Amino acid sequence: MSILKKIFTKSRSLNLEDGIFFDSIQAILGFAPKNLDHYKKAFTHRSTSKLNSEGHPINYERLEFLGDAMLSSVIAAHLFNKAPHGDEGYLTKMRSKIVSREHLNELGKDLNLIRFIESKVPVQHFGENIHGNIFESLIGAIYLDRGYIYCEKFIQKRVIIPYVDISRLEGKVISYKSLVIEWCQKEKKVFHYDIFEDNGIDGTRFFGVKLSIDGKVIAKARATSKKKAEEKASQRTYFALQEKMDKK
Amino acid sequence: MSILKKIFTKSRSLNLEDGIFFDSIQAILGFAPKNLDHYKKAFTHRSTSKLNSEGHPINYERLEFLGDAMLSSVIAAHLFNKAPHGDEGYLTKMRSKIVSREHLNELGKDLNLIRFIESKVPVQHFGENIHGNIFESLIGAIYLDRGYIYCEKFIQKRVIIPYVDISRLEGKVISYKSLVIEWCQKEKKVFHYDIFEDNGIDGTRFFGVKLSIDGKVIAKARATSKKKAEEKASQRTYFALQEKMDKK
Repeated sequence: MSILKKIFTKSRSLNLEDGIFFDSIQAILGFAPKNLDHYKKAFTHRSTSKLNSEGHPINYERLEFLGDAMLSSVIAAHLFNKAPHGDEGYLTKMRSKIVSREHLNELGKDLNLIRFIESKVPVQHFGENIHGNIFESLIGAIYLDRGYIYCEKFIQKRVIIPYVDISRLEGKVISYKSLVIEWCQKEKKVFHYDIFEDNGIDGTRFFGVKLSIDGKVIAKARATSKKKAEEKASQRTYFALQEKMDKK
Repeated sequence: MSILKKIFTKSRSLNLEDGIFFDSIQAILGFAPKNLDHYKKAFTHRSTSKLNSEGHPINYERLEFLGDAMLSSVIAAHLFNKAPHGDEGYLTKMRSKIVSREHLNELGKDLNLIRFIESKVPVQHFGENIHGNIFESLIGAIYLDRGYIYCEKFIQKRVIIPYVDISRLEGKVISYKSLVIEWCQKEKKVFHYDIFEDNGIDGTRFFGVKLSIDGKVIAKARATSKKKAEEKASQRTYFALQEKMDKK
């Protein structure tokens, strides 16, 4: 509530609804939005038939184009730096994996962006791709609102750190869960995956997982399936214990 | 010579060859490069078989991937802002026209970038695409050397201002030369295209054009064919006289 209070003090024109939206967006971005209108547009579906004062449609489709371009260039620069061994073909292939429709849908779903959608069509009628599309339009909105560097920050936080693992993309690591289990067995450590339901406010089913080793929680994760949540927690555990695990 | 002098004062390790390269690159970029190594790499062909200390090849191919990504995102943002009437499909189509292989080759050729190529293969053996490829790798080098904002500056100066004209890309304007001639005839003005050869230092044929109206030079241009140079000078004239010409 303290953040909400701060906004109201800063700008009296924000209504309660905007204040809540501001908080949610800030939590997702990891930094404060400046102009909420960009983010509202990022979640406006064409079915609303909104027009601006010049008669141009207001919806997320143009922002999707912009966000896609920013995502591609940030990922390109990341791969260029992190994979000095990879040639042009390798970099192109790795980037396609990261920005695949399927992956973007997963990213949008994990952030539960669909809760922000303004539409005349019931949300259940949308296909899977809506999740990835609004993930891209959100990036477009960040670019307009805060510029390229903040786009980079967001993509670092929400795409690169949690998901971009070059070994995995290269197919060297198939499952972090099996990596963790194997290591625990070798090292005679007791591991436990504690799974619980942790649903979204709109009723979407989510699963939380706590992975503990020798009674100590090493990593937590949340995803739309038990399997995904376990894998995510295992990957985080792997990164936490990498030095120890790589020795074996 | 004063710039050269400045470099030598700043850094005594620059030899004469580097000093000349620095000057040429600075003239192309419109700002000073910081680390010449990036630019040297941008013009190193794989036929040199150079390797760095980790055994990875040194050539422009990875930079080409990076530059392509930066170019796409800068052009995306430009079109997004300049064409508020265009939907996602329109923006995608316009961008493809701008970053087409043919267009990039023309851009690289106009800057005569091939003079910087280091290669074991004779330059004449390269196909047309070498021009566009090293134009892209140059953008990649700028990104590494000076960051995204400078990439944007360069693309603004070398791609957007001279070449990106939305009316033309939409096919509304077929030829600026005919536009200029038509206007001059209507307005009873005397126009003259003064064409002369203006070759590159490496012997590439270039043509210069001065377009004057009523005895006053309005625009100059230089290109690899007479027709292109005339068109470019006409486009510049159109932009210079746009207000007057659009009234008619």
